[in-house]
Amino acid sequence: MEKIRVELGERSYDIAIGTGILEGLGEKLRSFDLSPRIAVVSNPTVFPLYGERLLAPLKESGFEVLAVMIPDGEEYKNLDTVEQIYDDLLKYKLDRKSALIALGGGVVGDITGFAASTYMRGIAYVQAPTTLLAQVDSSVGGKTGVDHELGKNMIGTFWQPGLVWIDVETLKTLPKRELLAGLAEVIKYGVIYDKGLFDFLEVNKEKILHLDNKALTHIIRRSCEIKADVVSKDERESGLRAILNCGHTIGHAIETATGYTRFLHGEAVSIGMYLEARLSQALNLIEREEVLKIKAIIDAYGLPSALPAGIDVDYMLSSMQLDKKSVAGELTFILPQKIGSVIIHKGINAEFIRQALYSEG
Amino acid sequence: MEKIRVELGERSYDIAIGTGILEGLGEKLRSFDLSPRIAVVSNPTVFPLYGERLLAPLKESGFEVLAVMIPDGEEYKNLDTVEQIYDDLLKYKLDRKSALIALGGGVVGDITGFAASTYMRGIAYVQAPTTLLAQVDSSVGGKTGVDHELGKNMIGTFWQPGLVWIDVETLKTLPKRELLAGLAEVIKYGVIYDKGLFDFLEVNKEKILHLDNKALTHIIRRSCEIKADVVSKDERESGLRAILNCGHTIGHAIETATGYTRFLHGEAVSIGMYLEARLSQALNLIEREEVLKIKAIIDAYGLPSALPAGIDVDYMLSSMQLDKKSVAGELTFILPQKIGSVIIHKGINAEFIRQALYSEG
Repeated sequence: MEKIRVELGERSYDIAIGTGILEGLGEKLRSFDLSPRIAVVSNPTVFPLYGERLLAPLKESGFEVLAVMIPDGEEYKNLDTVEQIYDDLLKYKLDRKSALIALGGGVVGDITGFAASTYMRGIAYVQAPTTLLAQVDSSVGGKTGVDHELGKNMIGTFWQPGLVWIDVETLKTLPKRELLAGLAEVIKYGVIYDKGLFDFLEVNKEKILHLDNKALTHIIRRSCEIKADVVSKDERESGLRAILNCGHTIGHAIETATGYTRFLHGEAVSIGMYLEARLSQALNLIEREEVLKIKAIIDAYGLPSALPAGIDVDYMLSSMQLDKKSVAGELTFILPQKIGSVIIHKGINAEFIRQALYSEG
Repeated sequence: MEKIRVELGERSYDIAIGTGILEGLGEKLRSFDLSPRIAVVSNPTVFPLYGERLLAPLKESGFEVLAVMIPDGEEYKNLDTVEQIYDDLLKYKLDRKSALIALGGGVVGDITGFAASTYMRGIAYVQAPTTLLAQVDSSVGGKTGVDHELGKNMIGTFWQPGLVWIDVETLKTLPKRELLAGLAEVIKYGVIYDKGLFDFLEVNKEKILHLDNKALTHIIRRSCEIKADVVSKDERESGLRAILNCGHTIGHAIETATGYTRFLHGEAVSIGMYLEARLSQALNLIEREEVLKIKAIIDAYGLPSALPAGIDVDYMLSSMQLDKKSVAGELTFILPQKIGSVIIHKGINAEFIRQALYSEG
């Protein structure tokens, strides 16, 4: 098992990465100062696959475990679902020393984190992510939240987990399309921070796509290390942490404009990453060859890079201005300068962005 | 104007207390690093009285101000009301550097603080409390929250305000019953921490009830100092801060058992404080004379001390076990030992509590 420490003072925690480690969480949690009453939050897709492997050892370790089921899908990432969780936790009398365990992908993790941060003014939670996207991104760093009809993740908190517990084996049952969407975020870490990871992704494509444990563990560990490093330097996204949003300004706008149904998050980020690279090129901040390398790896992993036909660009621009990263209507972009390095760029004119979106690469 | 500092590291903030200072908040806020777009959250009772005195100077200081109205009353302290606030903030495009100003009593303050803590993962807010209860208690210390049908303040966060701005003059329009309810919390500070304040309340009753500015400012300042001192030693209520809940274990249970409609919070705390003093006496932790002094001051200020006839004590006991202060079903009480000193007492048998509630004082 590999261990990464996220250094955040009294809010520091470990990320554990391994194969077949889900069963070990019960034993591990005994070392935390918790009430015997805890809850696992999951959904009807993931729970039948991994619920028992988690629950039985938890019970053996002396916990009374409530299983809270929430519906599967980003469209249920809203306050109604959070209220269902509150109802269950209160009926089952979970207290201030109880913990929640998020077993599932990013939606389960984000909602569970939000519920934990607001239940009785904040209780502990554990991330047990079962999708690649959640393993390399959303489970680390304490961003929690739900969507609002006027924007993604508009309601949320910063609330760090007490532990992140990544069982790489859960990727064996992950649909291929979701695996690829998760790889978009791994590519992003390469683009913003680590040419070595970018090169590894180029060289080891076959191994990764065939779920080779060693290759997967390597890219997950490296992604988590980068995220842990960035988050410990800037927990609440007042500066550096914004670089993790490379591809996300446009990506979120695409998700909003397409009602969150057409693209997976990673797919939208993939398009956003390429379009933002082109925007960077239009501003003469990056060489064309570097942009083409970004496009090539996106293509190689079968991810989309083109702005979908028929999308409402005006609506996209307006939703960007409502994005949390926007302050007083000013747009912020994370623009690559070369593979492994980005800059935070503010105040780009909306008309310029519109032209860059429409131009040919 | 008097100033008290709440020392909480990077979350430190000032409490300003004065007469007729509401107009000065606009100028004051210019020194904070905020977006021009801010919102005042208030209700249809308070806003017509003080809204313009706050808004006009804010606008003169260059802010665009959205007024968000929420219905008046504890029965609206719920997630539905929070969602209405989110809707308004998003429609008006408040961003991560926007601030909310809570203009009103404890309900407005608690809801506004909760909305601020969860909007875009946390924005700044200012407490401008207009009831005595909010001025001496809920506006200081960063406890935010809303009620759930299974218990009071079950959903909430710790989220410190950036500033507390107390205009004593707003008490001139406060209904007498609410003034008295606020005094219950001031009495509590005397009981738990400061015999001097307790004595001041005994001696200056007439001045206080006739809204003498100097006497009011004194008890508000002293209450805020005590609260600031306790909160800076234990922000998240892992120890000392629990002493502020004197009277609240039973008080909350009374509120729950009577559906939050029969008693104001301070009235329920007033009853709780006396009954907990009697519980303390039953445990031989306090002299009878001290208990009688507590009862005498409660009576002197026209506050209730008797358990209401016909109340369902079983329901009360069961709701105490769901109280946030309860861990693994074990009850915690804050019991006075003498005026100015309390102890945190855990694990009292429910049957013993039932007997103490029914006994004659």
